[in-house]
Amino acid sequence: MGDYIRKVQYYETDKMGIVHHSNYIRWFEEARIAYMAERGYEYNKLEEKGIMIPVLGVSAVYKSGAKYGDTVRIRVQINKITAVKLSFSYEVTDNDTGELRTTGTSDHCFVDNDFKPCSIKKKMPDFYEEFCENK
Amino acid sequence: MGDYIRKVQYYETDKMGIVHHSNYIRWFEEARIAYMAERGYEYNKLEEKGIMIPVLGVSAVYKSGAKYGDTVRIRVQINKITAVKLSFSYEVTDNDTGELRTTGTSDHCFVDNDFKPCSIKKKMPDFYEEFCENK
Amino acid sequence: MGDYIRKVQYYETDKMGIVHHSNYIRWFEEARIAYMAERGYEYNKLEEKGIMIPVLGVSAVYKSGAKYGDTVRIRVQINKITAVKLSFSYEVTDNDTGELRTTGTSDHCFVDNDFKPCSIKKKMPDFYEEFCENK
Amino acid sequence: MGDYIRKVQYYETDKMGIVHHSNYIRWFEEARIAYMAERGYEYNKLEEKGIMIPVLGVSAVYKSGAKYGDTVRIRVQINKITAVKLSFSYEVTDNDTGELRTTGTSDHCFVDNDFKPCSIKKKMPDFYEEFCENK
Repeated sequence: MGDYIRKVQYYETDKMGIVHHSNYIRWFEEARIAYMAERGYEYNKLEEKGIMIPVLGVSAVYKSGAKYGDTVRIRVQINKITAVKLSFSYEVTDNDTGELRTTGTSDHCFVDNDFKPCSIKKKMPDFYEEFCENK
Repeated sequence: MGDYIRKVQYYETDKMGIVHHSNYIRWFEEARIAYMAERGYEYNKLEEKGIMIPVLGVSAVYKSGAKYGDTVRIRVQINKITAVKLSFSYEVTDNDTGELRTTGTSDHCFVDNDFKPCSIKKKMPDFYEEFCENK
Repeated sequence: MGDYIRKVQYYETDKMGIVHHSNYIRWFEEARIAYMAERGYEYNKLEEKGIMIPVLGVSAVYKSGAKYGDTVRIRVQINKITAVKLSFSYEVTDNDTGELRTTGTSDHCFVDNDFKPCSIKKKMPDFYEEFCENK
Repeated sequence: MGDYIRKVQYYETDKMGIVHHSNYIRWFEEARIAYMAERGYEYNKLEEKGIMIPVLGVSAVYKSGAKYGDTVRIRVQINKITAVKLSFSYEVTDNDTGELRTTGTSDHCFVDNDFKPCSIKKKMPDFYEEFCENK
C-alpha cells in the first residue's frame, strides 16, 4: 500500500512563493483519509455508521517549502492506537527529489454522532485490529 | 449602516503576490452576512429558525488586485428580492484609495431544513419587507 | 484527453454538509491548469517564460451540492481565444452518477512578468494555435 | 494592548458543524500579525525592509469546537526571542463565555529577501528590544 501523492495547487501558495504552512495540515487530513480508505475504511462510511474521528491536536515542523509545480508524497504512519484514541505521523517529501518538506503528527479520539467518546475496540473491532497490526 | 471593512490576510495571497481570486467569493459571503446581521438577521439565527439561504450562482469581475497590507471595503446591495429568491451585488474597493478591486453578484433561494424551497414572504414577512425597502 | 477527476476533501465542506461554493472556483483553476498541462503547457513553465494568465472574471451556477465522499469530474472547454484573451467554460458532474453539480466560466488575459498585457500570438504562437484548434 | 477578536466565518466550518481544525492555524497567523502591528511592526512593512519571519513549526491542541455565529478571542504571547528565532503561544477562547477552544504555538526564524537567516538583533535592534520586554 502506497504513499499519498498529490500536486501542489496554485491557490495553496502565498506571496512568499511557497505553499502556505496551514495547507500542510489539510494535506495531512487528505493523506490520513486515503490511508484509512486504502485499508477498507472510508471516512464517509465510518460517519454513516456513527463513528467520527475528530482531531485533538496537530503539529508540524517545516523543513523546506513546497512550490507550485511540485508534486508531494506523503507517508502516513499510525503512531498509536488504543480503544479510544488514535495518533498518526506524517512525512511530506518532494516526489521527484525526495527532499524533506514537512513532518507532522495528529492526535484523534473516537466519538459517536452525539460527539460522545466511544470505544472503537467495542464498536468496530476489525478497525482496531487492522490498525494495531499496521503499527 | 455601513460597508463591510476587513484586512487582507497573508494566507489569502498567492504566489502572484495578490489575493487569490477565489477569496473574493468568500469576502462576498462575509459582507453579505454582515449586511443581514446589521439589519437584525443573523444568519445562524435564521438557520436555527429553519431558514437557509444557499447560493445558486456567483459572478465576479476583477479590476485590480488587493495586496497583503491592504484594507478592503465591501459595499453590499440587494439587487432583487422575491418570495423565494434573493440576489446581491458587491463592490470591493481599497479602503484607503477607493480604487476599485472587484465587482460581483450572488443569487440565492430560501430553503427549509430539508433543503426544500420555501417562501420567505410567508415564513418571515418582516425579513421580506425589510429587504424590499432596502432595495 | 480526459476530464479532470478529483475527490471532495473534508475541509472543503461546510456546516450545510456540502462543498462550500467558493471551492468550485478553486476546482475550476485545478481543472484549467490540468487541461493546459495535458496539452503541453504547464503553468509553472509558462510563468518561468514570463507569461501569466490572470483571472479577469469568473461565474458559477450551482445545480446540486457535491458531498464529502463524492468524486467529481470536471470538463473544461475553451470558449474563445484571441491574441490577448482566453476564456474557459466548466462543467462539474458527479463521477459516479453523472449528476450535474455546477457549471461555470472564467475569463483571462495574458500578461508578462510586469503584469503588462501581451500577445500570446506573438510571444508563444504554438500555444495560440493549439488552443485555437481545441476550440 | 488587547487580544485579537474575530468572528467565525461560514466558510471556515466543515460538515461536522464546527470550525475546521486547519483554520486555527490561520487564525494564529492573523493574531500574531495583529500583535506585531499593534506594537509598531506591520508585517508588510517588515517585508519591504527585507525581513521575513517564516514559520518553522506549529502545534495546536483542540479543546472544544468554535461554531458558526461565535466570536473568538485570541491571546498571543511571545514565548522566546533570540537574535535569530522567535516563538509565540496562542490561546483561543470564546469571546462571550470564555470557554477555551484551542491552545497553540508557532516557531519562526528571521530571514532576508533571499531566505537567508539573519539576526534581527543586528538588522532591527528596536524590534528585538520591544519583544524582549514584552516576553
